[in-house]
Amino acid sequence: MALIVHKYGGTSMGSVERIKNVARRVAKWHAAGHQMVVVPSAMSGETNRLIGLAKEIQPQPDSRELDMIASTGEQVSVGLLAMALKAEGVDAVSYAGWQVAVRTDNAYTKARILSIDDAKVRADLNAGRVVVITGFQGADADGNITTLGRGGSDTSAVAVAAALKADECLIYTDVDGVYTTDPRIVAEARRLEKITFEEMLEMASLGSKVLQIRSVEFAGKYKVKTRVLSSLTPPDISLAEEAVSGTLITFEEDETMEQAVISGIAFNRDEAKITVMNVPDRPGIAFQILGPVAEANIDVDMIIQNASNAGMTDFSFTVHRNEYQAALDVLNQKVREHIQAGEILGDPKICKVSVVGIGMRSHVGIASLMFRTLSEEGINIQMISTSEIKISVVIEDKYMELAVRALHKAFGLEHAT
Amino acid sequence: MALIVHKYGGTSMGSVERIKNVARRVAKWHAAGHQMVVVPSAMSGETNRLIGLAKEIQPQPDSRELDMIASTGEQVSVGLLAMALKAEGVDAVSYAGWQVAVRTDNAYTKARILSIDDAKVRADLNAGRVVVITGFQGADADGNITTLGRGGSDTSAVAVAAALKADECLIYTDVDGVYTTDPRIVAEARRLEKITFEEMLEMASLGSKVLQIRSVEFAGKYKVKTRVLSSLTPPDISLAEEAVSGTLITFEEDETMEQAVISGIAFNRDEAKITVMNVPDRPGIAFQILGPVAEANIDVDMIIQNASNAGMTDFSFTVHRNEYQAALDVLNQKVREHIQAGEILGDPKICKVSVVGIGMRSHVGIASLMFRTLSEEGINIQMISTSEIKISVVIEDKYMELAVRALHKAFGLEHAT
Repeated sequence: MALIVHKYGGTSMGSVERIKNVARRVAKWHAAGHQMVVVPSAMSGETNRLIGLAKEIQPQPDSRELDMIASTGEQVSVGLLAMALKAEGVDAVSYAGWQVAVRTDNAYTKARILSIDDAKVRADLNAGRVVVITGFQGADADGNITTLGRGGSDTSAVAVAAALKADECLIYTDVDGVYTTDPRIVAEARRLEKITFEEMLEMASLGSKVLQIRSVEFAGKYKVKTRVLSSLTPPDISLAEEAVSGTLITFEEDETMEQAVISGIAFNRDEAKITVMNVPDRPGIAFQILGPVAEANIDVDMIIQNASNAGMTDFSFTVHRNEYQAALDVLNQKVREHIQAGEILGDPKICKVSVVGIGMRSHVGIASLMFRTLSEEGINIQMISTSEIKISVVIEDKYMELAVRALHKAFGLEHAT
Repeated sequence: MALIVHKYGGTSMGSVERIKNVARRVAKWHAAGHQMVVVPSAMSGETNRLIGLAKEIQPQPDSRELDMIASTGEQVSVGLLAMALKAEGVDAVSYAGWQVAVRTDNAYTKARILSIDDAKVRADLNAGRVVVITGFQGADADGNITTLGRGGSDTSAVAVAAALKADECLIYTDVDGVYTTDPRIVAEARRLEKITFEEMLEMASLGSKVLQIRSVEFAGKYKVKTRVLSSLTPPDISLAEEAVSGTLITFEEDETMEQAVISGIAFNRDEAKITVMNVPDRPGIAFQILGPVAEANIDVDMIIQNASNAGMTDFSFTVHRNEYQAALDVLNQKVREHIQAGEILGDPKICKVSVVGIGMRSHVGIASLMFRTLSEEGINIQMISTSEIKISVVIEDKYMELAVRALHKAFGLEHAT
């Protein structure tokens, strides 16, 4: 008997029929003798409906009140799912985040989970009940309702699994796992049976939308064995079959030994690049450039500063394409004259393509294979940035699909190792 | 400066535009220097939508889970109203019932309020904030969400007013007060400026749907000065005008001295009557008849047993028309033979008409005027039941409008006293 946490996304909870299917799947796991905790999202469309209503009242909604409203979608979901389980003959009980003490900070609309009190949940589990807990939300120390931001239900599920020391956290979603790259771009893309936590983190942060990045961080921090799998299989599929489907996120070194050098090709076409030319190369210059950008609440992704030439250097970074103009304005108005820099150049028509793989740590030649492949396709590399387990390049956005396909083939990702 | 509680029904909260109007009205009271607490219902249709969803999942919904789901409608309302107030430049904060410790028993779907902790609300009021609290709900001692049943927001508002010792509780609704009878039946029906708590209780229990009966009980128990008034007046109507509109529910004897003998004519056409003939007149017989009916969860309204004749009597009572057949079945299957009674007779085509008035206590002749009036219209009285401040008769239902009009005129209700 194991303690298993299931998480179901909004699409899986999108209709009465689908909720009944979720209940059948959970009932199957419960019938096999497992202790079950389920974290469902709001029914698809519901959170958007609620936020839309709020914005009609107040175009810039008060964040505390927005959380009060947006959190109700998940509350409806847990009640409906508990009922559907009871209709299947399984004893179940639902809780809103605050009821099982999902304590967060008070950063409304993007709160972070601080602690979960597991006593109530354990008592129910020991009594044989399935426990259904709202995703996406908690309460701060003063009892105000908070939400965790978009995709927060993934984080809730992993946090609940960590608090309960669950044996496994199964994230059911509308894809059947993590792929070597997006199958819509590369037909030969292959589902990974396993991926390490670090690789998953890079894939998530690079635009693979399978899991919210904070849930991956949480899984890594608390070593929660997490599996991403499909909610679209028949709910009565055999447990043995289901238990090995999807993609398992692993932490143990020995599990990663047989991994391929490269796990996947990630990409992101929502970025824009900005370069500040002829920056005096002196201490504090990076802060003088990026400080005002951060103050304007603009997130920066890649940051590149090359070795200087005669005391002057060029300083480049990328931002979300929606914030491109705002970032340019900040630099022109608050930075350029102040630091006596040269021209500010920018290009919103770029994309980022990355190869990710934990095997990269111990294999040379990954970068050169990547650069040669792109070169053979006639693709110019505009910026390069690397971490221990990924190499990212910025290229012109029209070459994105071509680059992803070429790299997928060059690294042999269509074949399992 | 007074402490005022406003309650707005689902129709008043039914759209973004209407919610903005509610905010304007509350802002006007706040600007006049009053401390304001507002209790809104769910947007009209929302509670039905949620309950419908629940019944699709589980035809007989689990009551705890149903409360989890149904309570979200009010939570959305309080958030939206707090935002609308902020958009009007008024500082406001919303709370779900459990957040301000609206403690109830654990009778899900029909819970009763046990206590309200006013500390949090007072702190906000003293800081100049308008406090918006969900109606219809609370939490039990274990933190489970409970709801108070249909119309429960009226009760919430009065309970909050009682806990805060508010100067007045204003119940805004889609009628502009309590009338001498239903204006759809008697064109001359007149709005009452005042009505006593006891009269209101009889009117409410007799089918006048202006206020939920439990809210009236609460108002009576804690002497909450409660006014029923229209939410359809322009929100910027003068405060002086609004403060005397609608109908005030009073408690103090001197306020009632000038009252008319009769305040109104109430009626109910949802009843059916049942008579058990030739019942042996012995101790315990009423319980032997009504015990099995109560066990079948059938509510009984009027109960009449006449003096016996040769040790035998007839025993009559009324039930809701929807439960007429079920009640007959219970009597025929479980009661008749057991108590050796005669025939069971019934008639679902009846109605109840009542005259209500606290002045009745000290005035003779009310009953005879009522009976004479009905007799002059050729209406046969089938059953009679009286309390200290009301006389109810059961008549054939086709005569209902005629009876109400004739009595309204006979008691001079079209003229203010």
